Formats: sequence, structure tokens, C-alpha cells
Amino acid sequence: MLPTEVLEIAQAELTDWQGSGMSVMEVSHRGKAFVACAAHAEATLRSLMSIPDNYKVLFLQGGASGQFAAIPMNLTGPGDTVAYLNTGQWSAKAIKSAKTQDLAVEVLADEKDSNYSTVPAAGSYTVPVSAAYLHYTANETIGGVEFDYVPETDVPLVSDYSSTILSRPVDISKYGLIYAGAQKNLGPSGLAVVIVREDLTGKARSTTPDIWDYAAMAASDSMLNTPPTFSLYLLGLVLDWVERTGGLAAMGKRNKAKADSLYTTIDNSEFYANPVALNARSWMNIPFTLADPSLDADFLKEAEAQGLTNLAGHRSVGGMRASIYNAMTQDGVDALISFMADFANRRG
Amino acid sequence: MLPTEVLEIAQAELTDWQGSGMSVMEVSHRGKAFVACAAHAEATLRSLMSIPDNYKVLFLQGGASGQFAAIPMNLTGPGDTVAYLNTGQWSAKAIKSAKTQDLAVEVLADEKDSNYSTVPAAGSYTVPVSAAYLHYTANETIGGVEFDYVPETDVPLVSDYSSTILSRPVDISKYGLIYAGAQKNLGPSGLAVVIVREDLTGKARSTTPDIWDYAAMAASDSMLNTPPTFSLYLLGLVLDWVERTGGLAAMGKRNKAKADSLYTTIDNSEFYANPVALNARSWMNIPFTLADPSLDADFLKEAEAQGLTNLAGHRSVGGMRASIYNAMTQDGVDALISFMADFANRRG
Repeated sequence: MLPTEVLEIAQAELTDWQGSGMSVMEVSHRGKAFVACAAHAEATLRSLMSIPDNYKVLFLQGGASGQFAAIPMNLTGPGDTVAYLNTGQWSAKAIKSAKTQDLAVEVLADEKDSNYSTVPAAGSYTVPVSAAYLHYTANETIGGVEFDYVPETDVPLVSDYSSTILSRPVDISKYGLIYAGAQKNLGPSGLAVVIVREDLTGKARSTTPDIWDYAAMAASDSMLNTPPTFSLYLLGLVLDWVERTGGLAAMGKRNKAKADSLYTTIDNSEFYANPVALNARSWMNIPFTLADPSLDADFLKEAEAQGLTNLAGHRSVGGMRASIYNAMTQDGVDALISFMADFANRRG
Repeated sequence: MLPTEVLEIAQAELTDWQGSGMSVMEVSHRGKAFVACAAHAEATLRSLMSIPDNYKVLFLQGGASGQFAAIPMNLTGPGDTVAYLNTGQWSAKAIKSAKTQDLAVEVLADEKDSNYSTVPAAGSYTVPVSAAYLHYTANETIGGVEFDYVPETDVPLVSDYSSTILSRPVDISKYGLIYAGAQKNLGPSGLAVVIVREDLTGKARSTTPDIWDYAAMAASDSMLNTPPTFSLYLLGLVLDWVERTGGLAAMGKRNKAKADSLYTTIDNSEFYANPVALNARSWMNIPFTLADPSLDADFLKEAEAQGLTNLAGHRSVGGMRASIYNAMTQDGVDALISFMADFANRRG
């Protein structure tokens, strides 16, 4: 979901960007106008997220999934130890990918006993001092499970922020690296943002593809090859919108209010249920089930007829899932709540 | 450059795609509508290029540069021999990347003696029978050098088609694999198309990132992770446009006529010069120099004032370069020719 006003700006200038007579997709990525556009996106992201100067901001291709491989390629040598926390399907993919990179992968916590409805308690796991990094998934989009704390560790902390970046303020200085696919809160798919502490760059394995070599990409302002120009341009528009609407503190308040209102509806209902532990509930992805799963199809059909789309749970888990990213308004959440109450009254 | 009518379609439906009330960037990539959109792009590409059934069409992230690494990762094991022809800067990058992948890289021909203004003659090099593949760059965008023949070899033939794909018919069955970044003739940047013979998939090294593993991507219809949805959508629009305008045979005729008219202008002039051997001249990228290089800046400035943009040569070589991809019309080329004649008259 993208903010309507961002789409309207993109639409208005799609065939004539900045008076160039061309689309932003047609101008040279090395021309002054586009270089300024990319630099503006980076500067706005740095400002919004208060990214310290000793961190590099990289715009890469391949999504967060690409980073599952690129992170070990950049931060480890063959045979190194790395540590992961497993809180669901995205953690599991990151772990699986690390295992292909000739590493000793230690999974310090695996929440399978709760059916991935919890996060491991702070202090319940010990990070090996020899680990090249500790990786966790800040928010599991499928399970709707989110860490309510930042793990403390002496090794570099690495986190998949795909579905939580820009949703509220974050203290980047606690991390060695965070990364995010753009298609949740940042813009369109096809772009990954990597924010990495400078001292962690420059150690890539020799076999690392250069478009994923953090030092090489940092040195070229992420333009070692042609960047995904339209995605970068749209990212800039989204960041401008976040700034106009009050920055991350205001965004965080709105997101918490949206999530609270939906969880309250679910918890006060005998018809709807959310399985996630109270302390681990996501602000972004709220899965819920109906007391009678045979009504799932009707629920989705009626919701869609009211313009409430994309509510089916991930194909691997079923049920429902409301993804309420930054671009979703409180009005949109209220419309969902209202429909849910009505549906439960009629069919529950 | 993109066809104007493609941009206008994209603009018209940017905020409401197929009556969904949403942008194509907002719909789920696993939803029926987008899956059909991606399937349509693949089917149209297969039809336009007459791609045989035993070839897979993959839509990947990371551009052609990503494939410089992904190709050896997929087609070789450590220590294997691979063969390359070096006709310029893009060949050189592909060779450099292959050398990082623990391979015996044999450069069978290097056109440095001609300052990369030639292609090696057919039969002037011998491909080792042990090579996993022979790689060449069908068209060097910077040097404006293009192969006028398809190398004959018993090993799988691999070619970078970034700036020549869709410019004319091609016999895919002669190749093991061709690949192309989308930003020349296919659509916007951020997407790479790989067309690979089925028997060459399924042999990736265990360390290959799964989003670049040809077999895994083929099995998932290039949706192992979220694809660059807007780029794929726009690719489909471009392919529809190619079909509407007569397919690749008609495109090839138009492109040859465009190139011929510009080369004739250059060759008939004492003021302009193109350094490339007659048999190796690109249909897509036509570099040229002015007899007096001190006039380069004036030439570019006056050209831009007439709406003739992007004429500066690559920063590594200077001079001028006209890139006349599919979306450039004969009228556009004629306008350039007319300006060139006028400039030479006044300043030559």
C-alpha cells in the first residue's frame, strides 16, 4: 500500500519529470537530476531515522531475500560462527540461506513450542562471543510477531526490518546492520535498503557479487550498476510524505493507535482471535481467526465487496491477516473494525 | 527511453489498475491479477522472440551486472574452465566477475589492439572443449561494437543481450543462455531477463543465493521472493507495444534503417567520425567524434536546446554517443541528423 498523495504525484509527473519532458525512468541515472533525486532520498532517510554519520545507507537490488545471502557474504569468512533467533518463516529463510554459506549457524532460540507466537525473552539466550553477528527478524509479517525489545549483545546486531522500518523511531546505534525490502513501508518492490555501520564494510568474501559488496556499493553511492531508478524515485516521494506527516514519532503514535484499536476489537470479541503473546504483537501485521473457519471465504468475499482487500492470511497459515503499514489510515482500520463487528453480529 | 504510448498507459492506470482501485504496485504479487500480468509478459516475450519450449524465461533482480556473477554460480563448479571474448567494457566486467568465482577464465580474444573497435573474426579463436561455456557481449553499449555473427561452438553459448534484445529477431536455439538488463529495450531498470536452456538449470553451486538459482526461480515462476512488480508490469506494456508495431522483424527493419541513416551521415561528413569497423557497427549505440573536440560542449548544449538529449559519450570515453533503442523513432534520428548537418555547416 502506498500513500494516495504519493501515487498522485508519481502519476502527474510520469511522462514529464521535473520539466525534463521525459519520465524519471528515462533520464540517465548518472545525470545531475537523478543523482540529486537519489541523494535526496538518502538524506531524507538519514534525517527521518537519525542515522549516525558512521553508518552507510545502501540501495540494493534483490530484496530482503537477497540480503539473506549477502549479509554472510559481507560479514563473515568461511567457517565462521553466526547466531540467529528463529521467530517464524522469515527468520527460518534467513537461517536456511546462512547455512548455504559455509558457516557454523547457531540458532540460539527457536519459538516452535509456541507455534511461533512468541519472541524469546531477553537474557534467555547467550550469544557466543565468537559469533560474527546475531541476526533476528524484528517483525515476522506472516506470524504477526514482533520483538518488543532490542537484543543486547557484544557482537554486531543484524536485523531484518522489512516490515517495521519507518513505522516508528529506532536507535540505529544499537545495530551493526539493518535491512529492509522496500515494498512494505518504503515504496515499491525491487529495492532493498541496507543501513550498515562503516566498520562492517570492506570485509566481503572475494566471491561476493560486486553489486552486493557493501564497500563497493558505498563507494559508488549505490550506482556501481544501474539502480532501480523508479523505485528509488518513489522511495524519495514516500520519505517526503513521512516527513510532511510529522516524521517517525508521529508515525509511531498513529501506528500504535491503529494496532491497539484492532487488537482491542479482536480481544473483546468471542468470534475473532489473535494467537500472538501480548508482548510480541506486531503493529504492522495482525493475523486473526474466525471462531468458525468455514466462514472464512464469506468473510473475505464480503470484506472485498466493501473495499477491504488483501485480508487473506498468508497461504501457508490461512485465516486472516490485516497488514496495516504506514499508508493505512485510522479510517481504513476503523472501516475494517466496523465490518468485523457487523460480520460477527450477523454470522457469529 | 520508453515508447510514449506505453508511458501514457502506465500514467492513466497508475492509481487504479484494472479497476482494482489500487496501483499495480499495491496489489499482491501472488494475487490472480498480478500473476496473470507476469504470465502475460512471459508469454508475449516467448511469442515475440520465438523462444523454444525447452528454454526457461526468468525475471531476476540485480540487472545484467548481477548475472556476471550468477552465470558462473549456476553453470560451473569451482575450478572449471570458462571462455570469454573481450570486445569492450561490458565484456571486461563480465570477465572480472567470473575471475572472482574460482574459475580458470580463458579470454580467447581481446580486441584491445583496435582500441575495441572490432569483433574477433569467426574462426579466429578456438573454444576449449572443456569450457563450461563461451561468453560474449552481443553489443557493447559504450564502444558501439556489435557482433555481426553468432559464434559457433560445441559448448553452451552465453551472451549479454542487454542492449540488443528485442531489436531484431534472434535464433535462441543457438544459445545456452542469453540475459539482458531491462533498461534498454525492455522497460525500466531493476529487472534482468534470463532465457536459459532447461538442461543448464539445476546445477547451481550450493552457495548460490536462491533468488539467483535458475532452477529454483524457474520452479517458482520467478516469484521465490517479491518480484519488482512495477518493472514487470511495464515490461508487459512494452512487449505489447512491440507486438502492436509488427514484432521483431518489423522492429529490425526500422532499427537497421535508423542506424544506416545515421552512419551514412557520419561517413559522408568530414566533421563527424565513427571509429568502429564497418562489420562491427552497433544498431543501437552509435558513438561519434567531432573533428574539433573543443566544440563538444557547444554541440551538446545546442543539441539539448533542441530536445536532443543524452548525447554525451560515456564518461570513460568522451565524445558523443547516440543511443537509438527501439523506442527512438526515425523522426527522432532525422532530427538528430538535421541538427548535426546544421552544426557542421555553421561550426565545422
